[in-house]
Amino acid sequence: MSLSKKLLAEFIGTFWLVLGGCGSAVLAAGYPELGIGFVGVSLAFGLTVLTMAYAIGHISGCHLNPAVSVGLFMGGRFSSKELIPYIISQVLGGIAGAFILYLIASGKAGFDVTAGFASNGYAEHSPNGFSLVSVLIAEVVMTFMFLMIILGSTNKRAPSGFAPIAIGLALTLIHLITIPVSNTSVNPARSTAVAIFQGSWAIDQLWLFWLAPIVGAIIAGIVYKFFETKEN
Amino acid sequence: MSLSKKLLAEFIGTFWLVLGGCGSAVLAAGYPELGIGFVGVSLAFGLTVLTMAYAIGHISGCHLNPAVSVGLFMGGRFSSKELIPYIISQVLGGIAGAFILYLIASGKAGFDVTAGFASNGYAEHSPNGFSLVSVLIAEVVMTFMFLMIILGSTNKRAPSGFAPIAIGLALTLIHLITIPVSNTSVNPARSTAVAIFQGSWAIDQLWLFWLAPIVGAIIAGIVYKFFETKEN
Amino acid sequence: MSLSKKLLAEFIGTFWLVLGGCGSAVLAAGYPELGIGFVGVSLAFGLTVLTMAYAIGHISGCHLNPAVSVGLFMGGRFSSKELIPYIISQVLGGIAGAFILYLIASGKAGFDVTAGFASNGYAEHSPNGFSLVSVLIAEVVMTFMFLMIILGSTNKRAPSGFAPIAIGLALTLIHLITIPVSNTSVNPARSTAVAIFQGSWAIDQLWLFWLAPIVGAIIAGIVYKFFETKEN
Amino acid sequence: MSLSKKLLAEFIGTFWLVLGGCGSAVLAAGYPELGIGFVGVSLAFGLTVLTMAYAIGHISGCHLNPAVSVGLFMGGRFSSKELIPYIISQVLGGIAGAFILYLIASGKAGFDVTAGFASNGYAEHSPNGFSLVSVLIAEVVMTFMFLMIILGSTNKRAPSGFAPIAIGLALTLIHLITIPVSNTSVNPARSTAVAIFQGSWAIDQLWLFWLAPIVGAIIAGIVYKFFETKEN
Repeated sequence: MSLSKKLLAEFIGTFWLVLGGCGSAVLAAGYPELGIGFVGVSLAFGLTVLTMAYAIGHISGCHLNPAVSVGLFMGGRFSSKELIPYIISQVLGGIAGAFILYLIASGKAGFDVTAGFASNGYAEHSPNGFSLVSVLIAEVVMTFMFLMIILGSTNKRAPSGFAPIAIGLALTLIHLITIPVSNTSVNPARSTAVAIFQGSWAIDQLWLFWLAPIVGAIIAGIVYKFFETKEN
Repeated sequence: MSLSKKLLAEFIGTFWLVLGGCGSAVLAAGYPELGIGFVGVSLAFGLTVLTMAYAIGHISGCHLNPAVSVGLFMGGRFSSKELIPYIISQVLGGIAGAFILYLIASGKAGFDVTAGFASNGYAEHSPNGFSLVSVLIAEVVMTFMFLMIILGSTNKRAPSGFAPIAIGLALTLIHLITIPVSNTSVNPARSTAVAIFQGSWAIDQLWLFWLAPIVGAIIAGIVYKFFETKEN
Repeated sequence: MSLSKKLLAEFIGTFWLVLGGCGSAVLAAGYPELGIGFVGVSLAFGLTVLTMAYAIGHISGCHLNPAVSVGLFMGGRFSSKELIPYIISQVLGGIAGAFILYLIASGKAGFDVTAGFASNGYAEHSPNGFSLVSVLIAEVVMTFMFLMIILGSTNKRAPSGFAPIAIGLALTLIHLITIPVSNTSVNPARSTAVAIFQGSWAIDQLWLFWLAPIVGAIIAGIVYKFFETKEN
Repeated sequence: MSLSKKLLAEFIGTFWLVLGGCGSAVLAAGYPELGIGFVGVSLAFGLTVLTMAYAIGHISGCHLNPAVSVGLFMGGRFSSKELIPYIISQVLGGIAGAFILYLIASGKAGFDVTAGFASNGYAEHSPNGFSLVSVLIAEVVMTFMFLMIILGSTNKRAPSGFAPIAIGLALTLIHLITIPVSNTSVNPARSTAVAIFQGSWAIDQLWLFWLAPIVGAIIAGIVYKFFETKEN
């Protein structure tokens, strides 16, 4: 598969992750009485990955996330020379998704992008007021587990064809746990895409949502290699 | 498989999509305290497609949606001579589903079909007051992504047997994002079926819910072909 | 597989359907603030079938429902001589499930079995006041579609191994639509099991929840045969 | 596969079960308006098992639960000499998960671990005031059914690859039914992990959440053997 096809697939996939995941949060979570709440947002994020993994997994591997690309590289599953192009496509795709979401959301009276726009944050910008340390631990550990599940379910000894279900629903699970903590990132491209539109505190706090997911992913790549050591 | 079997399958499938999806909205979404809300309606729409795709996918391909038939035709997966019969069966099946829903709903005191009957709308008939432009963008982009997922997950290199899960849950995801915007169509047959019963504004606004999904589907059919270009 | 193993499997499976489905409704649906509502009950009913279909499908076929056994018999998939023993096992298993639920529920102060115990009903005993005719139509049509999905997804041309997902989630979908109408039966064994404990109106109205599901299942068995007619 | 890899897998898996399942309850269930409620917590518990079963099922079998290990041993699927090391890894992994959860939760003002920390309990510590007898019956029967589903869906005649879906969603189902009764254990490692942090009544009542799940699992191991008896 040519690199240009892979990069277009990552662009479209991350576009979908941000438009679908952050879009469900911005457009539908807080609708009076009938809104989808955090359960619906968690489902939406997971389903963006599940659906794209079946649609484009055979094209690009469907990373949609710089931390995933880094973790797969650390685990020996992804080549160093595609790493930077993948990350650039993911960030650009995410921004495109946030832009379409911005256009749609702007068509309702009273929309205020600075109110949050599904950005990630800590301390006073954590949805439920969790400290920087709590958010840091949560994002590192959640991304670590996300990568353990990705590396394990795509192992050649795992049942074939099911990895998109395991990985997509892992992202749903991660959101079910940590939306109140950090609004859940585990994905620097997703955080960056909406932070640019929020435009103030979300940009100030963006460093953490690059650092923590990538640290968690690197640790997973290293730990997982223990399972792949040869046995006599 | 004979055309008559295919058309009956599309009829029954679209019957189920409208009865199940719109039925969950009309009958169960707003039940006090225990109602299923937009999460339940989103699940219901997706599950109509997931269940029928396993039940009749091997008969008709389980389109259940004129935009899907058009998108598959544009992507080179569906023959031009079956296009019009499929669309007619889908619209008739949808109307039959809406009719059964009307019969059931009428058996409760105070039912008023003109209140909406799960119709799609924009501006003052958007559930949360989104403008015509917002609804137009949302319906085009959501149908585009729906077709990208359909074309990708049914590609012969994608894992076999899982496409109904990916496609059904894609429709769930689309509803999680856009019910507040347009009540979510991405399907002209579904919009037409209930608009006929609503009988006033839903018919006036029906043009958009034919135009936007079909435009989105055509774009997807064209874009997806890039992934299928030969490589040296 | 011996008949005794099949009957034990049907007993345990229907035990689980009633304990899990009706149990979620009685124990968890209305919990203040955090209760699972109709979405949770719908998921629970569907998951009883999904889980048992993987666990005992290879033993008994996992009908768990007299209407399913009748529909499969009409569709030429089930032998007449096992029909009555299956139905008896299903009813007895359902009653055992209702009995365990009764024991658990009784351990909370203020429990009143006559308040409903997740029984099915019409008119004044419909959860949202739907008429006898509405309930009759709903139960016939929902069971018809349930059997169409069962017959289709277990057809040898459908993807292998996925039928439990399609069938289980079909039951979830049916509940998402019709809990407010009839509390959703589509299963005479489930209705009978809890009606016996409710003890008054649920027994008076039980005839409909045998008649309607079986009529729907018979129609499905007949209609589905059209899809299996030979072609030249 | 070496025992050390298996034990690390069980440690990480049970870590995830407690962090994800109990974490969703502690961090996200009761968030005002948008909280995930018991439906979200039920999904979270199930998804910890579903995701790990695809990720580490081929390494350790993914028990994550002393009752599961005992039940598989009784059913002839697990060796006696690995039983104790597995259980120790599960308890330690669970405690590690509870510790990370404690660290995260402590970063929010007003957090009080003694208020419950997702511990299991009966009588005055049952979420909805169910008696010791109700909790005992519920935990025995639910674990019995959990093991029946595990033994059945991993039987070589069941569809290959789907067991993680059946087993994970079985745990979701069990939570949908019994969170109000006992806060749902069916897993002594999960109960122990959080009881240690709660520190008072949860420790006093911990005996029941070892006894009942293991009794239920043993009965399942015995009953299931009937299905595996040879036939002439």
